[in-house]
Parts: sequence; structure tokens; C-alpha cells
Amino acid sequence: MNWNIRPLDRSAVPAIQQRIDQKTKPPGALGQLEALAAQLALIQGKERLSLNRPVLLIFAADHGIAEEGVSIAPSAVTQQMVLNFLAGGAAANCFCRTLGVELQVIDAGMLAPIQPRPEGLIEQRVGNGTRNLAHEAAMTAEQARHCLLWGAERARAQIAKGADLLILGEMGIGNTSAASAMMAALLDLSPSDCVGRGTGISDSQFALKQALIEKALLRVTTLDPMRVLEELGGFEIGQMAGAMLAAGEAGRPVLVDGFIATMAALLAVRLAPALRDYLIFGHESGEQGHRRLLAALNAEPLLKLGMRLGEGSGAVLAVPLLKAAISVYNDMATFESAGVVV
Amino acid sequence: MNWNIRPLDRSAVPAIQQRIDQKTKPPGALGQLEALAAQLALIQGKERLSLNRPVLLIFAADHGIAEEGVSIAPSAVTQQMVLNFLAGGAAANCFCRTLGVELQVIDAGMLAPIQPRPEGLIEQRVGNGTRNLAHEAAMTAEQARHCLLWGAERARAQIAKGADLLILGEMGIGNTSAASAMMAALLDLSPSDCVGRGTGISDSQFALKQALIEKALLRVTTLDPMRVLEELGGFEIGQMAGAMLAAGEAGRPVLVDGFIATMAALLAVRLAPALRDYLIFGHESGEQGHRRLLAALNAEPLLKLGMRLGEGSGAVLAVPLLKAAISVYNDMATFESAGVVV
Repeated sequence: MNWNIRPLDRSAVPAIQQRIDQKTKPPGALGQLEALAAQLALIQGKERLSLNRPVLLIFAADHGIAEEGVSIAPSAVTQQMVLNFLAGGAAANCFCRTLGVELQVIDAGMLAPIQPRPEGLIEQRVGNGTRNLAHEAAMTAEQARHCLLWGAERARAQIAKGADLLILGEMGIGNTSAASAMMAALLDLSPSDCVGRGTGISDSQFALKQALIEKALLRVTTLDPMRVLEELGGFEIGQMAGAMLAAGEAGRPVLVDGFIATMAALLAVRLAPALRDYLIFGHESGEQGHRRLLAALNAEPLLKLGMRLGEGSGAVLAVPLLKAAISVYNDMATFESAGVVV
Repeated sequence: MNWNIRPLDRSAVPAIQQRIDQKTKPPGALGQLEALAAQLALIQGKERLSLNRPVLLIFAADHGIAEEGVSIAPSAVTQQMVLNFLAGGAAANCFCRTLGVELQVIDAGMLAPIQPRPEGLIEQRVGNGTRNLAHEAAMTAEQARHCLLWGAERARAQIAKGADLLILGEMGIGNTSAASAMMAALLDLSPSDCVGRGTGISDSQFALKQALIEKALLRVTTLDPMRVLEELGGFEIGQMAGAMLAAGEAGRPVLVDGFIATMAALLAVRLAPALRDYLIFGHESGEQGHRRLLAALNAEPLLKLGMRLGEGSGAVLAVPLLKAAISVYNDMATFESAGVVV
């Protein structure tokens, strides 16, 4: 697979910075919002920036490792939460409604399809959940390819309908285990640097989770991103990475959520480094390991609210900050236009 | 002056917490947003919370100490920026338009009134700027009283028109000097713990600012909040404190902005400790001293974006987080209603 992502045109940076510096404020006084405005200006390359149709795609899938009891909830909860998303009752729904973000839910490979298929659910099932990564490869090489291709397809369909910001969220009991294992493999770290308590497991579950990932890593010594996805990944993680890559190909910014989404971003950036410039990091999760994962991507997230829910929920909360940065770039007066003489 | 602020009814806390814990998410997974929802529920005491008319009041005033050259800009910029607010060109305007916040601008005592008085500007002029706090009391005892009374009056007028969240912002060349001096006096700290670079002064300006405040503090040894306002304060700082106290009296939440606004909050809380429960802290400023000031109020701000602009700009950016917290409290499904069995 080749991803055709245009590197951003850095020659535009001085003009963009000058435009921001002429606004009626002391230099740098808008902090991270200034860098955000500059990044969006560089991505969109337009005189007036816009953010009219942010879309959250929630990919749901199940994980073989969940059978080990490394989560606070059983795999059945993945499907129950998908129904909750479709009924509009989850945190992600509340945030999307409140902040003007569209939401689409994708079955990327839950244990079983929901029957009859509920209205509004997109099926891109790579399998009936992954196999148990503690003992064997989570998926086949073909499944890993399907993850990326189908995730990309979903993003392209949204972009064709006008999506100008892609947010990727996930639901999948067991997926902090998969993401932690992938992180340890790709960054060559020990599991203790990568494994956290997910949504709140006990000490013994935590020890078990670490031990299982340690065992899996004995089997996996490659740094090849597709092989890491195959051995340790999840269907939703792979599809998120594919969606990010397609957004990058289309020149659309991507708003990255917490630990799992950032792991998908790392996978995608390893496949196509030019994607990094299109990524905006929405929040820093309370999950241990996220800080380090962000550092590996040289990312400074916008929000730090101690959230650890997934679903894209943290990233959606950052959407108003993008809109605010755009309003500064588009509409804030300059010293000259406002007659302010410093 | 007596401020009649009803202490919140803590007996409602367990029921509020139980309601939040029944939502379809792991306990605590929404981080600071859960505490925010609980605080708003406690303040509003309603089955369904609401936030329909957030209002930003920007108080502008001048400072005698500005004549010492402790700012990056001359006092004339206060008036120029007020005209910028009225024309809709400042960062605060952009954020308010983007995020649905009403804005009102008040002349709390600039060097001179703007003539002819521009449409939309409220005049509550306590004086023609304060006197130079480095050498004498910044204002009279009567002026200090006027600050609180007139600020309170402005807030009451907005609440009567339906404002259900008060945000206080400021503009005033020299006001980080006044706020730093007040902070040092009220918290009994040395100026070096309180004085920062404001919007970006040079090393020599920074040294001068510290020395002048040190000198002023030799004169001021009282911990009486009204005396501290009189000796070291600013008209906009006093009016912001009055507005906060009136909001507390009316049982309305207050969203606190950066360094200057937090200093006004400290002043107000010293006058009426029950106000503290009504305060929500919007952001942590890049200004040195803000962290310590927040700690003195036991406050954990929502945003940490390295902003240092004033105008209420940081607080306005936090408004969508309040709306998101309310949507969780009002509309998020419970485990039971969604059929999620953990």
C-alpha cells in the first residue's frame, strides 16, 4: 500500500506567522492557539480558513485477549455500547450534539454482527474479533490490509460528503491491551512503560495484563508497522489508522483522541511520515503511557482533563478550540486596522 | 458592605454523584468534567441543568503605575483596545462570536472618557485611572467601595436580563502590576513570587516592576481586602470582584479567567468566602504567579493553553466544556437505560 500524502508547503510559514503576529495581541499571547491556527492555515492553504463539517467516526471491534479478563467489562459491552451510540446515549453522542459534530458508528469487527443490522450502523467487519494476541497473531496479514483499506474508504466517503475535519474514536473491550502491546513493539519499550489500567482494572488484572503483553512481545521483534498490526493490533486500531491516512491524502486535518487513537496515529505515521503534519492532538488521556506516546509523535495535546473514556470523546471537546483558532486567523483585527499603536 | 451568598447545600452531593456514576462510562472516566458537572448541579439545584446565556463583561481601566514604563504598551492602548472591543475585532470578540457568548464592555475608569461616548460602551468610571501605587494609595476608600458596588450593579443588570453564567474580563495597561502587588499583600508573599512579565516586558522593565512593587509593599502591611484594593488595586479589578460577588448572591456560576481575574476572585472570596463554591476556573495563564494564585484558591483550571492575553479570552474558551458537562448530566444514558451490563 502506498499512501500519497503531500508534505505541507513550509515556504508559507513566514507569511502565516506574520499574519498572526499582526493581530491585536502581544506576540504569543494566545499560546497554543497560535500554533494551532498556523497549522490549520498551512493545511488548508486558504485566505479564509473553515471548519464546517467535523465528523467523528467511531470504530468498534473486539479483542481475543479480553478472554483473559484484563478489562473491567466483558466483550459483550462492546456491542452494548455500539447500541448506546446508535441510540444517542453515550458521552460521545452528548458531546457531538452539544458541539456540532456529526457521528458515524462502524462495526470494524465485533465478536458477532448485530442482528438485524441496526439503522445507521456501518459494517466493515474484518473478522469476528481478533485472536488472543497473548498466544498468537491477532489477525492475518490480509486482515491487517483490510483494516487500512476499509478505514480509508470510510474516511473518503465522509470527505466526499464534505467532512473537513476527521475525528477517530473507538470502542473495544480489551483495546488498551492491544494498543499498549503495539506501542511497546513500535517504540521498543518495556511493557511497564506502556501498560496502564485502562478504564480502571484491579492490581491483579494489571499484573496479568503486563505479563500477557510481555509474553506476546517475546514473539514479536519486528518494527514493521503492518507486521505489528497483524501480531498485536485490533481491527478498530487498524481502521482508524487507515482513516487517518486517507484524510492526509485528501489534505484534511485529523483530530486525534486519547491513548488508542494516538496509537493508531503512530501506526499511520510509521506508514507515511508526511501524515504527521495533518494531525492535531485533542487531549492527553489519564491512561498511563499516553504521555510517552504523545512524546514519540512530538505532540502537545490541547486538553488535559484527566479523561480516559475513548469514543473520541476527548477530541470532540477540542473542536471549539479549532473553531476559535480559525476565528482568530480569519477575523481578528490587526494593529493597523484597529488603530492600536503599541 | 455585606454580601449575602448562600452556602451550597452539600447534602445534595451524594445524589448528584450517584447520578453521574450511573452514566454509561467507567467511574471517573470523564475526569475534570465530572467534577464540573457536579459543581454546576450543586449550584443550580435543578433536575435539568442549563446554560443558555453566558455573558462576558470586560472592565477597562487605567493604572497610575503605567507611567513608570512597566508595560509593553502605553496607557493609550487601553482606550484603543476598548474601541477594538466595540468594533468586534479583538480576540475576545472572535471567541464570543464563535462560541455563543454575549459581550459587554465597561469603562471602569480609563484615563479619560471616550468622547463622544461610543454606542455600546457602559460608563462606570470610578476615576481617571488610579494613582501610582508605587508612591501612594491607588484609590480612596470611597473609590474602592464604588468599584465593588458598581461592578455588582452591572452583574445584577445582566442577571436580570437572563444571564446564567458570568465571565469577567479586563483590559488595563499596567494591571498585572496592580494584581501582582495585591497578590503579594493578600497572600503575604514576596514580589518575586508574584510578579511576572505580563504581556512580555524586558529584563530591565521586569526588575523595575519588582522594585516598585517591593517599595509599595513597605507601605501596605494590612490583610484587609478593602484596604488592599484601596492601596494597590485597580478599578477594573475591584469591579470584577463586585460583579463576582453579585453573581454569587444571585446563585449564578462565575467563570474565572486568568491572572488578573483570579486576583479579583481572591479579593472577592476574602470578602465573602461562600463565593468560592460558585467559581469555575477557566484556564491557567502563562503569567508567572497564576499557578500560585490558583493554588491559594484551591482551584484546578479547565484549560492550560499557555495563553496570557486577558480580556476574558481564556475563560470564554472554556464555555463549551461547561456545556459538555451539562449535556452529560442531563442527557447521557445510564447503564440501566442503555442496557449496558458491566
